[in-house]
Amino acid sequence: MGQTFAEQILGHASGRSDVQAGDMVVVNVDLVMMHDSLSPSIIETLHNELGAERVWDRDKVAVVIDHVAPAATVRQAEQQQHVRRWVAQQGISHLFDVGRGISHPVLIEEGLVQPGMLVVGSDSHSTGYGAAAAFGSGMGTTDIALALATGQTWFRVPETVRVNAVGNFQPGVSVKDFGLWAARTLRADGATYQSVEWHGVDFLSWRERMTLATLSIEVGAKAGIVAPTGLGAEHPVPEWLRVEADASYSRVVECDLSTLEPQVSVPHYVDNVVDLADIGRVAVDVVYLGTCTNGHYEDMAAAASILKGRRLAPNVRMIVVPASSESLHRAASDGTLATLLAAGATIGTPGCGACIGRHMGVLAPDEVCVFTGNRNFRGRMGSPGANIYLASPEVAAATAITGYITHPRNVLDSTEQAVFA
Amino acid sequence: MGQTFAEQILGHASGRSDVQAGDMVVVNVDLVMMHDSLSPSIIETLHNELGAERVWDRDKVAVVIDHVAPAATVRQAEQQQHVRRWVAQQGISHLFDVGRGISHPVLIEEGLVQPGMLVVGSDSHSTGYGAAAAFGSGMGTTDIALALATGQTWFRVPETVRVNAVGNFQPGVSVKDFGLWAARTLRADGATYQSVEWHGVDFLSWRERMTLATLSIEVGAKAGIVAPTGLGAEHPVPEWLRVEADASYSRVVECDLSTLEPQVSVPHYVDNVVDLADIGRVAVDVVYLGTCTNGHYEDMAAAASILKGRRLAPNVRMIVVPASSESLHRAASDGTLATLLAAGATIGTPGCGACIGRHMGVLAPDEVCVFTGNRNFRGRMGSPGANIYLASPEVAAATAITGYITHPRNVLDSTEQAVFA
Repeated sequence: MGQTFAEQILGHASGRSDVQAGDMVVVNVDLVMMHDSLSPSIIETLHNELGAERVWDRDKVAVVIDHVAPAATVRQAEQQQHVRRWVAQQGISHLFDVGRGISHPVLIEEGLVQPGMLVVGSDSHSTGYGAAAAFGSGMGTTDIALALATGQTWFRVPETVRVNAVGNFQPGVSVKDFGLWAARTLRADGATYQSVEWHGVDFLSWRERMTLATLSIEVGAKAGIVAPTGLGAEHPVPEWLRVEADASYSRVVECDLSTLEPQVSVPHYVDNVVDLADIGRVAVDVVYLGTCTNGHYEDMAAAASILKGRRLAPNVRMIVVPASSESLHRAASDGTLATLLAAGATIGTPGCGACIGRHMGVLAPDEVCVFTGNRNFRGRMGSPGANIYLASPEVAAATAITGYITHPRNVLDSTEQAVFA
Repeated sequence: MGQTFAEQILGHASGRSDVQAGDMVVVNVDLVMMHDSLSPSIIETLHNELGAERVWDRDKVAVVIDHVAPAATVRQAEQQQHVRRWVAQQGISHLFDVGRGISHPVLIEEGLVQPGMLVVGSDSHSTGYGAAAAFGSGMGTTDIALALATGQTWFRVPETVRVNAVGNFQPGVSVKDFGLWAARTLRADGATYQSVEWHGVDFLSWRERMTLATLSIEVGAKAGIVAPTGLGAEHPVPEWLRVEADASYSRVVECDLSTLEPQVSVPHYVDNVVDLADIGRVAVDVVYLGTCTNGHYEDMAAAASILKGRRLAPNVRMIVVPASSESLHRAASDGTLATLLAAGATIGTPGCGACIGRHMGVLAPDEVCVFTGNRNFRGRMGSPGANIYLASPEVAAATAITGYITHPRNVLDSTEQAVFA
């Protein structure tokens, strides 16, 4: 019987090639990621509760300061200082400090995450490593500390939901719409403790695939793995990782990208997804382009293609927080950033930004935000009185121009639509 | 008897052309600036204590959200929302929101501050308007509220300290070194309730002049006015504003810029200034390039000229927070920003940044920061245990490369020094 990606990777990591969904496995992890927000408690647990003096392998630990970076309070600054000192004391090879960006894209950019790897991280969006066809999973303090001490963790091998795409997007529609369509179709509990496999998007860069991988947790998944076809030479795929025709899936859904319309997730649940055409006129205060889901170079470029030569609507703030320094550097080098700034957008330090409501654009009561991120829970970005609409970078840009949630086609003239296509 | 700039401007604003230092005058203000940090209390005072329903002139009030922008907490977000709503209710013409930058450069960029104007602002560095040869002065909540209600305020016409520069800077030395030299020479109380006039820097742009104008408050001055010669067509100088040969100064000091060496202000007082050559080896954790004093385009360009093709030292973070969106846009358009990012620096939203220790790079205990700003008081940028050294953008860039406070000449080879000169 064939295996899903999750079965193949967990099989490889456990040394048992024949694992199937439902098996319990102890696995060797290839990489443990921890960030500034949870690292202090992880360090405390590692040393004081588990009694470990050192991490099991200093070359397989990545520490990323991305959650509140740069620090907004003295307490955060102290915690980050504590983490830096611990990294030096442990001799850990991989520290990515303030401004390098969000752990998920950064570890792929650095070549630390590769197809077929097993990665655990102290962040729920660690499913994002599936953009490079790794099995990535988020865990809490104690589990991460245990992985740091032993290099191992355990899983119940998950069942898999398979999402197939056919065709390609119309102008103004992009991978975020596909991801939101999946959330709408599967619902928030549609893949609880399962793996989501994404197929049919070989034409996307790994950064674009991260939209799907990070959104996988929003349907409850333990991992979200995009089929590795088309990843490119810098992400070599091990020969044992492949689509097996007779693999068993708990559910298979299919989306025709060519008929997909822009999707919007309305407050306050990610799977509250509707066609943009159906939400009526929603006036917006803030447009926020960022996060591991849609804060990459490609996302800034998509927004810039719409904002070029235009200006933000009066009373709309547009905040762009790049997902990584590499995305920012590229945007700063080729005019993308200059275009966004010329339109009236502003920029923040690469990292998680206001996604977690702890700095760099916290929302006030009654404020309405169009957000390219992955969560619109009540209070996620600050005040519980704010309303967050999740959408694509293209919708975000069109909305910034008009001041209300807008289809990109409605702000582009026919010449541009041809170019845009 | 001739008049100083302060006497001329306060005379003009009071309708009494003959005023002299020591006179008490009631003046009409040309512009009132208020920022996010104090606006809520100013609004409260205006309406509830002074009983005014409206500001005296909605076209002469500028509201700038620069102190914690974008908001780092829900409370800040609420306060900013309150300020925005008040601006709309009052019909105030000039709101500069998140990302536009620090009030002082922004109001000059917008053409709202011109030579000879009288500007009061809710920020101590409102002396910065002297970069455009305006009399700018910082005031507290009650005085700003009174100015908003009546369009008037009062001054005791200040005496004037005159600072003359001769010659021009050597490579690696710049206007910040001149400003710090003045703080070293005059000391923190050297111009208390006086005006400082800066002469001999006609070759500097108004942004570079702002270094001197903002540092004027650090020697206690009520205003710091740079002689308007050489300002350019966008800043027309009224015929009544001129150097008068027989004006009376309380003190005249002179600096030969051609023999000036890089200056560093060591913790914890601005006037604790020494030659860089005399401070020994000071290892640094953070290099912070920003503020109204030295976060302008010219400052980023000066740093980029040194960082080009080089990398930050290990364990050094370099945070660049542009003083305004105009400076950022220029740096993003001509490769300056890309050069800084390629060296490993990161960027923050234009505004006051961590200068006031409230977001975007707050310092931890024991951290050592080289800061291009204007204050190194204990706790200014966060923890009272941090040590802040004030220096020029050139010294900041050289320090970022070596990891300890460094003369720019020591990181440039001879070919570059020729170009740099």
